[in-house]
Amino acid sequence: MSLPPVLPVPVRVGLIGAGRIGTFHATTLARRLPQAELVIVADPADGAAQRLAAPLGVEATTDPDAVLADERVEAVAITCSSTAHAELVIRAAAAGKAVFCEKPMAMSVEEADAAIAACQEAGVPLQVGFNRRFAADFAAAKRMVDDGAVGTPQLLRSLTRDPDLAHPTAVPAWTIFTQTLIHDFDALNWFNAGATAMEVHAMADALVAPDCRAAGLLDTAVVTIRYDNGALATAEASFSAAYGYDVRAEIFGSAGMVTAGTPAQLPVRHWSSAGVAGPTARADTELFSDAYAAELASFCQAVRNRTPPAVGGHDARAALRIALACIASVQSGAPVRLDDIDEPSGAAA
Amino acid sequence: MSLPPVLPVPVRVGLIGAGRIGTFHATTLARRLPQAELVIVADPADGAAQRLAAPLGVEATTDPDAVLADERVEAVAITCSSTAHAELVIRAAAAGKAVFCEKPMAMSVEEADAAIAACQEAGVPLQVGFNRRFAADFAAAKRMVDDGAVGTPQLLRSLTRDPDLAHPTAVPAWTIFTQTLIHDFDALNWFNAGATAMEVHAMADALVAPDCRAAGLLDTAVVTIRYDNGALATAEASFSAAYGYDVRAEIFGSAGMVTAGTPAQLPVRHWSSAGVAGPTARADTELFSDAYAAELASFCQAVRNRTPPAVGGHDARAALRIALACIASVQSGAPVRLDDIDEPSGAAA
Amino acid sequence: MSLPPVLPVPVRVGLIGAGRIGTFHATTLARRLPQAELVIVADPADGAAQRLAAPLGVEATTDPDAVLADERVEAVAITCSSTAHAELVIRAAAAGKAVFCEKPMAMSVEEADAAIAACQEAGVPLQVGFNRRFAADFAAAKRMVDDGAVGTPQLLRSLTRDPDLAHPTAVPAWTIFTQTLIHDFDALNWFNAGATAMEVHAMADALVAPDCRAAGLLDTAVVTIRYDNGALATAEASFSAAYGYDVRAEIFGSAGMVTAGTPAQLPVRHWSSAGVAGPTARADTELFSDAYAAELASFCQAVRNRTPPAVGGHDARAALRIALACIASVQSGAPVRLDDIDEPSGAAA
Amino acid sequence: MSLPPVLPVPVRVGLIGAGRIGTFHATTLARRLPQAELVIVADPADGAAQRLAAPLGVEATTDPDAVLADERVEAVAITCSSTAHAELVIRAAAAGKAVFCEKPMAMSVEEADAAIAACQEAGVPLQVGFNRRFAADFAAAKRMVDDGAVGTPQLLRSLTRDPDLAHPTAVPAWTIFTQTLIHDFDALNWFNAGATAMEVHAMADALVAPDCRAAGLLDTAVVTIRYDNGALATAEASFSAAYGYDVRAEIFGSAGMVTAGTPAQLPVRHWSSAGVAGPTARADTELFSDAYAAELASFCQAVRNRTPPAVGGHDARAALRIALACIASVQSGAPVRLDDIDEPSGAAA
Repeated sequence: MSLPPVLPVPVRVGLIGAGRIGTFHATTLARRLPQAELVIVADPADGAAQRLAAPLGVEATTDPDAVLADERVEAVAITCSSTAHAELVIRAAAAGKAVFCEKPMAMSVEEADAAIAACQEAGVPLQVGFNRRFAADFAAAKRMVDDGAVGTPQLLRSLTRDPDLAHPTAVPAWTIFTQTLIHDFDALNWFNAGATAMEVHAMADALVAPDCRAAGLLDTAVVTIRYDNGALATAEASFSAAYGYDVRAEIFGSAGMVTAGTPAQLPVRHWSSAGVAGPTARADTELFSDAYAAELASFCQAVRNRTPPAVGGHDARAALRIALACIASVQSGAPVRLDDIDEPSGAAA
Repeated sequence: MSLPPVLPVPVRVGLIGAGRIGTFHATTLARRLPQAELVIVADPADGAAQRLAAPLGVEATTDPDAVLADERVEAVAITCSSTAHAELVIRAAAAGKAVFCEKPMAMSVEEADAAIAACQEAGVPLQVGFNRRFAADFAAAKRMVDDGAVGTPQLLRSLTRDPDLAHPTAVPAWTIFTQTLIHDFDALNWFNAGATAMEVHAMADALVAPDCRAAGLLDTAVVTIRYDNGALATAEASFSAAYGYDVRAEIFGSAGMVTAGTPAQLPVRHWSSAGVAGPTARADTELFSDAYAAELASFCQAVRNRTPPAVGGHDARAALRIALACIASVQSGAPVRLDDIDEPSGAAA
Repeated sequence: MSLPPVLPVPVRVGLIGAGRIGTFHATTLARRLPQAELVIVADPADGAAQRLAAPLGVEATTDPDAVLADERVEAVAITCSSTAHAELVIRAAAAGKAVFCEKPMAMSVEEADAAIAACQEAGVPLQVGFNRRFAADFAAAKRMVDDGAVGTPQLLRSLTRDPDLAHPTAVPAWTIFTQTLIHDFDALNWFNAGATAMEVHAMADALVAPDCRAAGLLDTAVVTIRYDNGALATAEASFSAAYGYDVRAEIFGSAGMVTAGTPAQLPVRHWSSAGVAGPTARADTELFSDAYAAELASFCQAVRNRTPPAVGGHDARAALRIALACIASVQSGAPVRLDDIDEPSGAAA
Repeated sequence: MSLPPVLPVPVRVGLIGAGRIGTFHATTLARRLPQAELVIVADPADGAAQRLAAPLGVEATTDPDAVLADERVEAVAITCSSTAHAELVIRAAAAGKAVFCEKPMAMSVEEADAAIAACQEAGVPLQVGFNRRFAADFAAAKRMVDDGAVGTPQLLRSLTRDPDLAHPTAVPAWTIFTQTLIHDFDALNWFNAGATAMEVHAMADALVAPDCRAAGLLDTAVVTIRYDNGALATAEASFSAAYGYDVRAEIFGSAGMVTAGTPAQLPVRHWSSAGVAGPTARADTELFSDAYAAELASFCQAVRNRTPPAVGGHDARAALRIALACIASVQSGAPVRLDDIDEPSGAAA
């Protein structure tokens, strides 16, 4: 990461949700970004906020409302459980705070619309945590595509493979679409700019943890999407990649192809009697450490400079609709037209 | 390519079909493989056989039957138009010749069954031109997968991108499935050994030459396949890759991933003010030159040693059924169960 | 870069020298590292310190002694002109400050010995700015080598190619050895741990800016080194790489090879009719941004935890002796034994 | 390798020397190249020629003179012991045969001059076995360099690492320069076209087999060369690379860099919990199989078309002089000017 531009006055941030990603974001805000000043952390779980806040020297609370009511707080980072995202966006907007919300911003189109409307009405900026857009290689790929490197997109691919499925029984149904592949849906929409997804077909299964299939777990999925500019896209996910964390994109079109991402990013190799070998990335916080910092820096800049965030509520809504279409497709075993997606049963489960 | 093992006596081959790939195979048989001796070339088109045969110093004929009747000929290489493949396989078998048949071996399951039965009854070996299996990188990938490198396959991908769509109006309907992706279907079946394709969904369009859509051309396609071992596969094709010829495979499973293929195979790079650049392969006969020779060498070895060919009629039939299911899927706009594939309308068009 | 460990109390740093690298280090210390608190910046040039300090919100002075006398300052970062390094190390040590000194720490062995002795006597830690050791790929390579990945080192290579020679007339004589290749000499010593350079041969020339040859400029150099464990090493530098900034290492030995570094680190590629292309790194502050931060984080940790710095005065001295031997070799046109290096004429010019 | 152009009439070749490389060349000539017809193989060792010739269906003799006297033979391939090369070139020329001679063509400048003169006087073409020039990646690199991709060459590197030192006691003194690095010297001369080596410095040692040092074995070497266009080059060799066979080149100049070669040429990778891994080339006959065929095809074409061979006696002489300078440099411990190379003691040992 190049050194971020320095803002005249750092943005004072309150964070709600001290889980894995909340902890990472809080540390980035407090320790790594001159653009931000973390002032308070909230988490209802006993001691969670305190454990995170103390070493960072910031305030802790078990009450999210205390963050929203805090007059020092200019912006709220929402990193709690996904099902609470939309409501918190709405309440933060009502409190006049700028909002950074982890993906997914909402679990239904209705929720998404309400969240977007709330921020618009309150006149507060809303950014959603599609971190991939801020990774140096993905950002470079986007610039290439925007500059015409592939001509008209015809075939796109995006994939996410998480390194491990530690607690399969704790994974809510449809997580692979609403939490994991939603990154890929946004990436595909972003690369295929100006086009709209029309039709979706999804195949999914519990191949990593077959015992959890009955409970609704899907840990492996392949999705195909047809866009209104004709482009065909695939998105693919697995919850358990033995070699680590793997996020890649491929945009192919009339004038060529752009590829981004590799799990073997570090240019170091061992050459021995066994051949050539190198290390692979083991976690999102390793591969995307700089991307996570860059998205928060970009958010702070948008807040301070009163410019639109780089990725907003409508992007979250568009990706969500594809995720909901995937759920409908798995349920019906057939392709689903996006026009038919409104509020499918099970989506908010 | 390492030097091929030398056979005691070369296999005497007659070739039927002096088109692009027939010319390449004839030259390989005549000039490059000590295991083979090309004796005669047939093509009904005026002068075609003669133009190919003369510089190779072999006999030419316009009559394919002259090849089948030639007592010198031990093996027939069928490289003519796809729609004539199955019938020629059957007639070559009846003539007691070993058969090498370019893909696709047949245009319908019925044809495929008849061709397989004919070779079995005649006791002649039958090999199908799935050249990818003989490419050094794909062969190495297959050994890795067979040795357990990926554990149980869960997600597979195979793709083919041809460099140019020179004459779109000359491309028969469904070519992308029956001629192009059939390579990928075989590759996926081969890597996911022991598993059977159960369900297929295909999306396809005329994105390269939209004017030919009305005439039935499909030049861009994405296929998803569900196998009976749970594995989900995608196959993807385009008839026009600006950067050349691109064939790749990715096999992901419980223990890891194996990847094979790249259009930038040559290890030479130019580093300049524009960044780093390298060449890409421009044709199948460039990328797979050694694979084409290796498949014919393997065929000759099987003929001479009376061992089963490495890839046979049942492999061709299995790949064909997926191609036919793709056609049905495109026609219906819905996923298709392989069990329902028998003789869909349009398949043999 | 993974998030750095947080220290109980940040190390208060004063920085001397507001040039290019001083500006980068100051910004890193002030804005990026929770382990450090930049309190004051000094530069005798009119307005230089002020221009750097103001946006960072720290104090500025034209008097380096003001930094050394500042009671708040626990550690001094010396980033001024190389010829002043050693004396400032000695004075900072005398003032009881921990010392981080950019390379080269000294321009003569005598100076180096005096600097080392001063820090030892004062009991202050001394770290030298060999940033390469803190780059993720080089650090991984070092761990591999230490774990036996190459067995006994036999052939080593290290190279540095700077992107541009903007002002050749401003480059002091011997800079290529004392400023540029000194990084490579340290890298070679580090990878070939426990071994000592015995003999050095250097060839150098003004190929980028031949007009400056008469003025003593050398912009292109190749050095060979023989170590007492038998290993033979080459170090190579150019002041003008059209494709950007290029730092690589190769360690070959009885059990294999380890390679590190590439100017094409970003995993993004454009595939077009021209072939495949990708971006290259354009500056040390781009390629080594994280390494620069990591070396200062490591320094702060050593200061706070009272542990020895990862790279110290003796490392600087060992690399300097090779640089001085290179100068002697160029002057004599012959190999030089390290034993003969003490204080060659011209070294401190 | 693309299919070679077909000659009207194959060149009839006799081969002298049925050792490792003679066996490889004989098989290529007999079985792989339509341009050549191998007619006779000679080797004085008991049964050696017979063992090679029989399965290839060609004549065998223990008498090299029988090859030279054979009226069918148009061209002689000299693949026997290096010390006999020059004399056989001269005798083959006297017999009016075209000559392909493995490297090194001669062991002294005097020998080289005599061989060149003999071929000139007899009016027969002479090609030397610098196979690297015919490898697809090296040939592409050469075209790039000739097209100005690097501007004026400033820094060059060439290396050879053989996979194993099976019988160190059987290796004649100076082999690393006269047999191994002579490939690199030719590659450097070729890439730095039009320039002449002026000064050479060599460091070498017995690091792989230290017990053989006393007997004169050198198994590890680093050479630096200064050319008259200012370019500085390094050549590096080891007789024992654990990871296989490694040949690479790097040409850096005012406008950029070209790199060629890798021991991990096959695009297949295994991604597992251990990271990413791939195979490496294990032998020259694996990495350069196609290059060996291409150099013989090129030779046959030159013979048949009466065009000058792509690499001739003067190239062999130029590379030899650098090898002899290396020997002198190791003996004296100092750089050696090429002007001083004529007939150093020990060179022909």
